[in-house]
Amino acid sequence: MRVLGVDPGLRTMGWGVIESDGSRMRHIANGLCCSDGKQELALRLVSLHRQLCDVIAAHAPEAAAIEQTFVNADGAGSLKLGQARGVALLALAQAGLTIGEYAPNKVKKTVVGVGHAAKPQVDHMIRMQLPGAEPAGPDAADALAIALCHAVHLSTARAWDAVRA
Amino acid sequence: MRVLGVDPGLRTMGWGVIESDGSRMRHIANGLCCSDGKQELALRLVSLHRQLCDVIAAHAPEAAAIEQTFVNADGAGSLKLGQARGVALLALAQAGLTIGEYAPNKVKKTVVGVGHAAKPQVDHMIRMQLPGAEPAGPDAADALAIALCHAVHLSTARAWDAVRA
Repeated sequence: MRVLGVDPGLRTMGWGVIESDGSRMRHIANGLCCSDGKQELALRLVSLHRQLCDVIAAHAPEAAAIEQTFVNADGAGSLKLGQARGVALLALAQAGLTIGEYAPNKVKKTVVGVGHAAKPQVDHMIRMQLPGAEPAGPDAADALAIALCHAVHLSTARAWDAVRA
Repeated sequence: MRVLGVDPGLRTMGWGVIESDGSRMRHIANGLCCSDGKQELALRLVSLHRQLCDVIAAHAPEAAAIEQTFVNADGAGSLKLGQARGVALLALAQAGLTIGEYAPNKVKKTVVGVGHAAKPQVDHMIRMQLPGAEPAGPDAADALAIALCHAVHLSTARAWDAVRA
């Protein structure tokens, strides 16, 4: 199964595609959708939406996952991120993908084993579990981690279904 | 000139279309785009996006305006609203519309004369300035007020340009 992970953001939106076959995971591609901070907000959102639609068209994922946003007291930041996240969710759902949502700590716990892993540790484990993966940046590494997390949860759920059947 | 105003929200998104000819304003239509709180977030965003695209296609506005969001300490609320607002901005920009943004107080000041007008006062002034308008709800009344505010600012800017020329 091909899984797309997305780490939403207004300036930089990371994405990563992996192929999972039971417990075997393979890296397919990763990258960044970027928007120009000097442009108007609405045009930035149009650009991010188009870039993410292009990624979906190019890699034809069968499932998607996105980071659950950590909400803090920074209302302006939450609003900005929310606008980018809304556009990402829209692109995924318009493509007919069902979307898994995972808190950052859940992703780290699944990929690294601890919920408060530092970024270099996530990057290291990504490269270990996905040989050949060269994340285009920290947001792309996070997106691959989200895809891995979703793939692990999907295959665990399937294994349990098989045991129960 | 035909102006579309949007009052963004995740559950209910108000919209209003008016026609302005200098200082003469005429009501064209107004309504609500709604999403079902029991549905998944991504599907709600798809539905809101489609409804707003339908409004744009039906009424062919030449300009659009949206409420600038009041950011407070409620991060979860800002995130939710941000996701809906992002999808609204996307629909407007995808249709090639330039988008004016106005703070709620600015809208009230333009339409009612005071920045802290109560909702019934806004509703009253909308009906005064747009004879025949029957807002579909408070969010639709707000959207008509945003459209009025934008139309007034556009026509004032044009009048100044004419004086300067």
